[in-house]
Amino acid sequence: MSVKITKNEALDYHKFPNPGKVSIATTTKLESQRDLSLAYSPGVAYPCEEIALNPELAFEYTSKRNLVAVISNGTAVLGLGNIGAIASKPVMEGKAVLFKKFAAVDSFDIEVDETDVDKFCEIVKAISPTFGGINLEDIKAPECFEIERRLVEELEIPVMHDDQHGTAIITSAALLNASEMMNKKIEDMKVVVVGAGASAIACSTMYKELGVKNLIMCDSKGVIHAGRTDLNKYKLDFVSNTITTMEEAFKDADMVLGLSKPGTFTVEHIALMTVEPIVFTLANPTPELFPEEIKSVRPNAIIGTGRSDFPNQVNNVLGFPFIFRGALDVQARKINMHMKKAAAMAIASLAKEPLTADLKASFGDLSYGREYIIPIPFDKRLMIEVSAAVALGAVETGVARVKEFDLEKYKEKLRTLIS
Amino acid sequence: MSVKITKNEALDYHKFPNPGKVSIATTTKLESQRDLSLAYSPGVAYPCEEIALNPELAFEYTSKRNLVAVISNGTAVLGLGNIGAIASKPVMEGKAVLFKKFAAVDSFDIEVDETDVDKFCEIVKAISPTFGGINLEDIKAPECFEIERRLVEELEIPVMHDDQHGTAIITSAALLNASEMMNKKIEDMKVVVVGAGASAIACSTMYKELGVKNLIMCDSKGVIHAGRTDLNKYKLDFVSNTITTMEEAFKDADMVLGLSKPGTFTVEHIALMTVEPIVFTLANPTPELFPEEIKSVRPNAIIGTGRSDFPNQVNNVLGFPFIFRGALDVQARKINMHMKKAAAMAIASLAKEPLTADLKASFGDLSYGREYIIPIPFDKRLMIEVSAAVALGAVETGVARVKEFDLEKYKEKLRTLIS
Repeated sequence: MSVKITKNEALDYHKFPNPGKVSIATTTKLESQRDLSLAYSPGVAYPCEEIALNPELAFEYTSKRNLVAVISNGTAVLGLGNIGAIASKPVMEGKAVLFKKFAAVDSFDIEVDETDVDKFCEIVKAISPTFGGINLEDIKAPECFEIERRLVEELEIPVMHDDQHGTAIITSAALLNASEMMNKKIEDMKVVVVGAGASAIACSTMYKELGVKNLIMCDSKGVIHAGRTDLNKYKLDFVSNTITTMEEAFKDADMVLGLSKPGTFTVEHIALMTVEPIVFTLANPTPELFPEEIKSVRPNAIIGTGRSDFPNQVNNVLGFPFIFRGALDVQARKINMHMKKAAAMAIASLAKEPLTADLKASFGDLSYGREYIIPIPFDKRLMIEVSAAVALGAVETGVARVKEFDLEKYKEKLRTLIS
Repeated sequence: MSVKITKNEALDYHKFPNPGKVSIATTTKLESQRDLSLAYSPGVAYPCEEIALNPELAFEYTSKRNLVAVISNGTAVLGLGNIGAIASKPVMEGKAVLFKKFAAVDSFDIEVDETDVDKFCEIVKAISPTFGGINLEDIKAPECFEIERRLVEELEIPVMHDDQHGTAIITSAALLNASEMMNKKIEDMKVVVVGAGASAIACSTMYKELGVKNLIMCDSKGVIHAGRTDLNKYKLDFVSNTITTMEEAFKDADMVLGLSKPGTFTVEHIALMTVEPIVFTLANPTPELFPEEIKSVRPNAIIGTGRSDFPNQVNNVLGFPFIFRGALDVQARKINMHMKKAAAMAIASLAKEPLTADLKASFGDLSYGREYIIPIPFDKRLMIEVSAAVALGAVETGVARVKEFDLEKYKEKLRTLIS
């Protein structure tokens, strides 16, 4: 990242003014005996009775409507690996902070000390009545796939494993814009994905949904091809029948997505690609290749990294706060592929809009092009455009609980939230 | 309760300004890219690594230090009974609100959709790393006993089922003061407990700890005596070998604690008691007997109810916020009987102090005596006296994690919190 910070600064930040980054606030008036009687016994019995008769009324009378749980078991935390539930808490609190700051979503972190898939699912299901949505976070592959699949199927609130879908949605936005900018049909593009973890699998799945037909995935042993006998069932979906080497994979490729680590591919591989390729090197903090290395062989490449000190930062905060904002606001039962695609398209569209004056003041005069293919996280219009697209997507696919939805009115409401 | 509220008022209160009563607040500065880098990736990795090496450091770097979970499965909610997890949410949010308002404890409600004791315990244990303490709430008897026993034993953070111990601690404070006021030794008192649920069992256990030797418990079938064959193991601890009828139980009794419902005992029973008895009729909202009924036969009785419109309101909010405040502040591993007794004694002592000017202005010139044997919930000195007593109790019994504790300095810190 661009901003140099020291260990002591980071530790101090987490201690000051009090340990941690989140607290609870009360939202109702509570000053008199009368207020107490409304907030607690005996008045509280009325909403309880209403909800007992119709559980859906929890969305009317409790904080559930605006509340997302950030849930992890600490098995795949940042680049730190399996550090356990409690050690993941600063990250999960950080995620909760981002939800609140970027999209006014109340979010509470739950660290679950359980690695068994069945038991983990049972636990999350049992506590799920508390929440209006669940953001799974930093759960290792391949367990994360089964956990998410099962919870999505069994719960009637939106569940999303952000490590999978966040990057998928944001790089999909980039792919949509880049293909248009280069006048290529997505159907005709050759895409290489280097990395075969949670995020890589989700990105590849989404690219196929967007129309990509020619996608080659590589893991730490090279290309995932039909001759290999060491593949889990998730990788099996991406077996290549024709290509077996990295060189063949990169030959004339239009896009490479790196979700691996430095050294898994080199400038020699980039030099095999088409003349104006899309190159996302998202290993963090050190990307697979730095932009200057890529440009040494492909000066017109569209390049993105995970870092804020280079153009086109692929940062999940472009997505998850607004995806849940939209899903919560229509009381969606799911976050489905249609909604994810809608989010990607909204992110892509926003990059084409001129920057607002305050953004220009802070970030310079960025405009749509190779160096600005996706918006920056501080663009407040993300909340309006992405949330509205997701909410509309939920309504269109019948997973929204709310019956009446007016897109323009909803956007107006979102505008008041950010102003 | 004294304050008349309607169903619509209660429902509106829970909807306005937004559904529910709690939200999440961020506590650290988060305005720049640098702040983001401290709060989230990459800076957040430092506290994660520290906690991975030493899990106790979660108290230094996360909100755990000031965070109590209010956990229920909705099996015994207020007087509503088993209404289920989600329908209990308004009560649990209300409890969280009281924690925050009265003692600045951050508290988050978790509704657990599980009634099996083993599974419930597994779930709470699994999510426990998230929290600095656990307030169990509205879980039905007898399951609540086993659940609390097991969680207290297996977790190294304070766990307390407030329905059991809240009333026990507050009525114990009343018992301490009343016995002194009437110049009776607790050891010589005859105490009748009408009701044999979670709270009644906990009260009876605590009274015995305070020295009560002659205690008779009655359930819906009458006195719990040696001749009965229908008793669960918790009631077996309170079997009377000599008394079999309610009339014998009340004969010359010094105290009766009603935790049952209207009609379980009558003025005729009160008329059998000693001339200056302690009578707590805590059925809510309608007490077993109203104060005027009791006074018709025992004009000098010390009377308490659960209602705010009569003297001596037994309200759990006198206890739990401050008990957890003190336990959290010394990072206690348990809330043990010594700490509960310390809380009861601190509550009892505070009733002997003159009211502060602002309390007098709101509540009239109450002073220690039959009509004012326990403090009122709005007495801010509760936070200082009760929290300090509990914290000291934890240090004295070796269950506090903090090594250095200075009672006066701690009280000073608490004074700054309420001013």
